[in-house]
Amino acid sequence: MTPTEALASWVADSDYDAIPTDVRREAKRALLNYLGCALGGSIEPALDTAVRVLAPYSGPKTAQLLGRAEVFDPLHAALLNGIGSHVHEYDDTLPKNYIHPSPPVASALFAYAAANPVDGRRFVEAFVLGFETESRVGNAVYPAHYDAGWHITSTAGVFGAAAAVGRLLGLTSRQMVWAFGLAATQAAGIREMFGSMAKSFQPGRAAQNGYTSALLAQADFTAGERALEGPRGFAAVTAQRYDLDKITDGLGEEFDLRVNAYKPYACGLVVHPTIDGCSRIRERHRPAPESIEAVRLRVAPLVLDLCNHKTLNRALQSKYSIYHAAAIGLARGKGGLREFTDEAVRDPVLARLRSLTTATPDPAVTEDQVHIEVQLSSGEVLELFVEESLGNLRRPLSDEQLEEKFRDQAVLALPADVVERVIDQCRRIDELDDVGELVRATAPSTGGAAAGAA
Amino acid sequence: MTPTEALASWVADSDYDAIPTDVRREAKRALLNYLGCALGGSIEPALDTAVRVLAPYSGPKTAQLLGRAEVFDPLHAALLNGIGSHVHEYDDTLPKNYIHPSPPVASALFAYAAANPVDGRRFVEAFVLGFETESRVGNAVYPAHYDAGWHITSTAGVFGAAAAVGRLLGLTSRQMVWAFGLAATQAAGIREMFGSMAKSFQPGRAAQNGYTSALLAQADFTAGERALEGPRGFAAVTAQRYDLDKITDGLGEEFDLRVNAYKPYACGLVVHPTIDGCSRIRERHRPAPESIEAVRLRVAPLVLDLCNHKTLNRALQSKYSIYHAAAIGLARGKGGLREFTDEAVRDPVLARLRSLTTATPDPAVTEDQVHIEVQLSSGEVLELFVEESLGNLRRPLSDEQLEEKFRDQAVLALPADVVERVIDQCRRIDELDDVGELVRATAPSTGGAAAGAA
Repeated sequence: MTPTEALASWVADSDYDAIPTDVRREAKRALLNYLGCALGGSIEPALDTAVRVLAPYSGPKTAQLLGRAEVFDPLHAALLNGIGSHVHEYDDTLPKNYIHPSPPVASALFAYAAANPVDGRRFVEAFVLGFETESRVGNAVYPAHYDAGWHITSTAGVFGAAAAVGRLLGLTSRQMVWAFGLAATQAAGIREMFGSMAKSFQPGRAAQNGYTSALLAQADFTAGERALEGPRGFAAVTAQRYDLDKITDGLGEEFDLRVNAYKPYACGLVVHPTIDGCSRIRERHRPAPESIEAVRLRVAPLVLDLCNHKTLNRALQSKYSIYHAAAIGLARGKGGLREFTDEAVRDPVLARLRSLTTATPDPAVTEDQVHIEVQLSSGEVLELFVEESLGNLRRPLSDEQLEEKFRDQAVLALPADVVERVIDQCRRIDELDDVGELVRATAPSTGGAAAGAA
Repeated sequence: MTPTEALASWVADSDYDAIPTDVRREAKRALLNYLGCALGGSIEPALDTAVRVLAPYSGPKTAQLLGRAEVFDPLHAALLNGIGSHVHEYDDTLPKNYIHPSPPVASALFAYAAANPVDGRRFVEAFVLGFETESRVGNAVYPAHYDAGWHITSTAGVFGAAAAVGRLLGLTSRQMVWAFGLAATQAAGIREMFGSMAKSFQPGRAAQNGYTSALLAQADFTAGERALEGPRGFAAVTAQRYDLDKITDGLGEEFDLRVNAYKPYACGLVVHPTIDGCSRIRERHRPAPESIEAVRLRVAPLVLDLCNHKTLNRALQSKYSIYHAAAIGLARGKGGLREFTDEAVRDPVLARLRSLTTATPDPAVTEDQVHIEVQLSSGEVLELFVEESLGNLRRPLSDEQLEEKFRDQAVLALPADVVERVIDQCRRIDELDDVGELVRATAPSTGGAAAGAA
């Protein structure tokens, strides 16, 4: 069997019980994290604009959007869920291939489940298969593909979405090969779009295109059968070097969900150790912000290359300010979406803390570390060395921390009591009779009632 | 100005009267050729399948499909028009960059015009601007981009569709830059799909994605502003070598519509000289097929590498048979869609002519040439040397030949009297008050009435 056929057969013929328990558990954590991001992004201008532009083109309105009142056809819902879930770049990351894996796959799946009855077991299974497909396609072409300028989240993501929806549609392995062909010929998205609305459009379009690929393949719309390995296939065309063995090695035994990482803070990764360390100092010593006289950081040199913004004019800059990172850690003990808003930038407590913070580059400090000294008016100096930052694969977020991250975002879209009911449904998503209930529970106007009826 | 900005400004600010008369005339010929192909492809299984699969996802039905009874939303109509117009690969070709230029651009435009009032002048102008955008983007990356395995018709086509629809939407030049960014990040389609239904899907998807790009940009959905020239932009990511000067050199003065070629025959290019020459022998000498005792061809060696099928089992093989080419030229004097069907393959007259045809490779004969000897039972030998084949840029199809090609395809979808009315509307498309009339005239069930009312 070719790599394309082997992957297609595995997705088409896999068995729920063959998915290891720890992988299913991690799938549920990834889905909770995904859904929180989709709710946190549900009120962003990029999504508002896309909803407004595309509404006149929606088919019959069967698919509730995540965290919004609008209902679209499921193909559009896949696109729009994808924009919302990636817009804050607070979604999950696979450090091994830089893919943000959940948005393309889960955006398609929640759109499908919003319009079609799917029980929780089948949903989780489809997510695991789609996630693994996407990551393995990415592994085969990483790093050359990413280095060339491809946004690997969307180019690999379209395969994951095709696999996930194709699995729910019950594609044969031959049809799955065609779905992968149709995905390959729609694989797109370039890094030149980073920093614009087009960036979050990309995982959304991957979700929508993968979904469409599965629908067409189900009707025997044919495609080239060597999507991945052909001489003009995905790998050869988009990567100078690639290793197709990574598609099939350990397939069904090794799962990249086990090496998936969740961002604890809604900002640039290199300032994460500082927020983490300052939050821990706050938790242990509870220094009053006004008692702090100086904050001295020793950081990896790259941190100052990327995040040396001390005077902040726009909310976006705060995501790349090592000074703001120290300030929010010490004053608020967290780095959620609300710590990087215009309100946060203007907060006088945070502004004072930023101004008295200094950062020194130290080549001995890694990008995952920081040395912190906080000098208080009492003369006391609080010291902390962060050896590995929270969110790192060796220091994953606990279930409670993931739920707290979810809450922090979801309250932007939903009343607090609905948020708790949605968290509860997520915890037992594999036991739900119909995942559509969960989707409809995230709709602001009807969420309370729908969740109550569920 | 960057190449992206220069192209965007030209498209946004161009003036109809600045388009040279010969270019406008060629645009009308390209549109007639396109529309004939769309009608000829309107009953193909790939299109039937896509229509059936996507119908449940269509938005409000405002856009009549070309040559079919169904009405879809215009974004889906762009996709479906694109599939139908490319499915027979009988569409136009730019020899300089291998793009089939009209399907991505015209499929989007006819979908737009089906749902929105557009007069003929604006329509032709948008077509010229979209066509030129597409071809210039292709020129910049050809041949490295094509050699790498990209289906340049769809990857460059999405820019053309964005430009054409963006022009009709009245985008500012800044919005046009965003439309190009959104196009760049959806540019996709690989040659591995050739020979499957996915191939004709690609120009359709390019039309739909370009159209969507223009709609989003109109609402200020932002994108990276260096779509073409950025370090992670379209050219750098998809071509090892490229020349961005080709985007802007002679912009507004040189038009690639002037070097657009129309296939006279619905089959592989290398057998065209043989059909052409045999058709001319038939026209001049009118030999009765049963009087033919032998046909001897001397052809370019490549012809026998590609088209040495003498015994035909499937209709598709007949498109790549030098023997069938001689037979249809001598017996029917043409090579339209109906010369490459199962019926044609089974026709005993054609079968006999194929069996008595021989072909000898001759390195002195180019792929655009053929030497033909037809030996009759009377002992007479009819000889002809084709020096340049019909459809070649130096021997373009006449307006009458283009209309005959149109008729030959259109009668598969429409009654003969409607076909003539549609041809008449195409001839004066730049004078129409509403191009939607023309689109609706191509609908089989209502075509007669709509055309009559027009």
